Amino acid sequence: MQKKNPIYTGENSFSLLQQYIEDGHFSRLIFLVDENTHEHCLPILLQQLEDLPPTEVLEIEAGEGSKDAEVLLQLWFALSDLGADRYSLIINVGGGVVTDLGGFLAGTFMRGIPFVNIPTSLLAMVDASNGGKTGVNLGGYKNRVGLFLNPEVVCVNVGFLETLPLRERKSGFAEMLKHGLISDYHYFNELLELDIEEDYPTEVMIERSIAIKQSFIDKDFRESGPRKALNFGHSIGHAIESLSLHSASPLLHGEAIILGMMAEVLLSVQYCGFDPELAGEINSKLKKIYPELVMPEDHSTIVELIYGDKKNKSQQLNFSLLSKPGQCEVNVKVEEKYIIEALKKVKNP
Amino acid sequence: MQKKNPIYTGENSFSLLQQYIEDGHFSRLIFLVDENTHEHCLPILLQQLEDLPPTEVLEIEAGEGSKDAEVLLQLWFALSDLGADRYSLIINVGGGVVTDLGGFLAGTFMRGIPFVNIPTSLLAMVDASNGGKTGVNLGGYKNRVGLFLNPEVVCVNVGFLETLPLRERKSGFAEMLKHGLISDYHYFNELLELDIEEDYPTEVMIERSIAIKQSFIDKDFRESGPRKALNFGHSIGHAIESLSLHSASPLLHGEAIILGMMAEVLLSVQYCGFDPELAGEINSKLKKIYPELVMPEDHSTIVELIYGDKKNKSQQLNFSLLSKPGQCEVNVKVEEKYIIEALKKVKNP
Repeated sequence: MQKKNPIYTGENSFSLLQQYIEDGHFSRLIFLVDENTHEHCLPILLQQLEDLPPTEVLEIEAGEGSKDAEVLLQLWFALSDLGADRYSLIINVGGGVVTDLGGFLAGTFMRGIPFVNIPTSLLAMVDASNGGKTGVNLGGYKNRVGLFLNPEVVCVNVGFLETLPLRERKSGFAEMLKHGLISDYHYFNELLELDIEEDYPTEVMIERSIAIKQSFIDKDFRESGPRKALNFGHSIGHAIESLSLHSASPLLHGEAIILGMMAEVLLSVQYCGFDPELAGEINSKLKKIYPELVMPEDHSTIVELIYGDKKNKSQQLNFSLLSKPGQCEVNVKVEEKYIIEALKKVKNP
Repeated sequence: MQKKNPIYTGENSFSLLQQYIEDGHFSRLIFLVDENTHEHCLPILLQQLEDLPPTEVLEIEAGEGSKDAEVLLQLWFALSDLGADRYSLIINVGGGVVTDLGGFLAGTFMRGIPFVNIPTSLLAMVDASNGGKTGVNLGGYKNRVGLFLNPEVVCVNVGFLETLPLRERKSGFAEMLKHGLISDYHYFNELLELDIEEDYPTEVMIERSIAIKQSFIDKDFRESGPRKALNFGHSIGHAIESLSLHSASPLLHGEAIILGMMAEVLLSVQYCGFDPELAGEINSKLKKIYPELVMPEDHSTIVELIYGDKKNKSQQLNFSLLSKPGQCEVNVKVEEKYIIEALKKVKNP
């Protein structure tokens, strides 16, 4: 089992980070950013920190396209050229692309140098930046290459949410809704009361999502059992996301996951005895929050991509589905025809 | 601390491996080989194993040039194309290049799938295949990218030594001599009695070297202290090896390490009070076994490459040097001018 990282939240988060950096006596800091977080977040962060060791900035292009093995290769060279050594600290400032890529970069450079995640998107705050999953995509397959590796520290500051476009906020909100569905239906209903178009999730809500995720990880860091509950909506959602990567208008992760959850709620009825009426209600509510989302029509490619997904053993498709509101069952064997049926139903409810 | 892998040696090694494979219920086996081990070793191995799951072979070009980030990228794609999943087993059959590269490949594919090392070179048997160091080179810098990660099993079968050219055998012998110098001078002298031009190291000798290496790793898996003793000869040796990679006649790893040890024996006199007379004797003995080795003349590039070596913090050069025969001191600060002096002396003893 790996060392568990502290998660700094609340108004002291930056001063705790300052203390961590001071105590670490690093030879240098290397900030990994994309062009958006470079412009909007790094200045806010640097304003809060003082007396830093020599500092470098590596910038990648914003978007899922950067979470790629080829970009990784460039970053390994860039780190090497900067003279990064075992005593350097990598600080990932960004959304899930930056924290997933930066974590893998740090974990493999010189057989592993320390890194810190500073999530700036809602999605990264409640999901990507903690839990130890790092990785890059390979030829369209998500996270085909990666490591289970915790950062030294995660520093969550909700102030960064104000730098986000609404679409990104709604993408992150999808994972929060998932946390409610798999673990705490009361929390799910509480989230539904928030008008995400107008308001920000509260710090308490974000901490609740982090705690739910952490409770699964504590049981099963390497995802051999209970942790798979966090994949609810993701077997289909990842396939939709992969498919959309190559389209003219790629979906954000959370958007694909909403579509995946809607289909998997229906599979939950089919396979886990989930109440069909409640399933319909949940899907209506999700549809109301995300009226703009449309299920892609290429169902057979979605199924092919699901078979390519690493969460499945050989030719068996294992899903994480809801047995009750707030409760999830893992390793449910699912047949192709019912997946197709669910995809069709979500398209034409 | 990571799970410690068993090391199968002796005549039962293949049947133990057979048992391990049966117990694992793997979806498929993927053998990583180079063209030499594909031809000379894989058939021997497959003859010893039976009732295997579906089997695939990935072949790389023999030589250090394959231990490279670009080749790694190709292998990630190849694994993906083969449909490798979390229930696949990678079996590395080869020398240090295959085991270092294959270990990293397995450790990062789908956030880590299991792998077994079957060292076929003497160097890999006594050094590369065990200890958990995996990695690839980047732009000429050795092991710039990698992981500390143990294989599931190491299976050492001395029969493979007969497939090796003499030059490779002598390269592996260098690491055995190092084990003697840093930990057991009696063993060093015993090794000197072997005529490596004519004979093979015995199984007992190989097990002794494995045990010496293991004793350092048990104390310090991630090389923050005592394990650095195993780097004796390597600060200078790696630099010589990097330099020679780009030359018309690249040195083998052990050849570069012999030259590195000869220079570092002299630095041991300078910094650690090592007996100068004994230092001279050791170097004469090494010279006698390896009369063909010549120190490269480009001393300033060697020093530059040492500064680029990850074992050093910022601008300080930390060496592992001998304090006594069979005893090593780590983190010894060394100055550039004495390195140059030692390099000159080895060239013109």
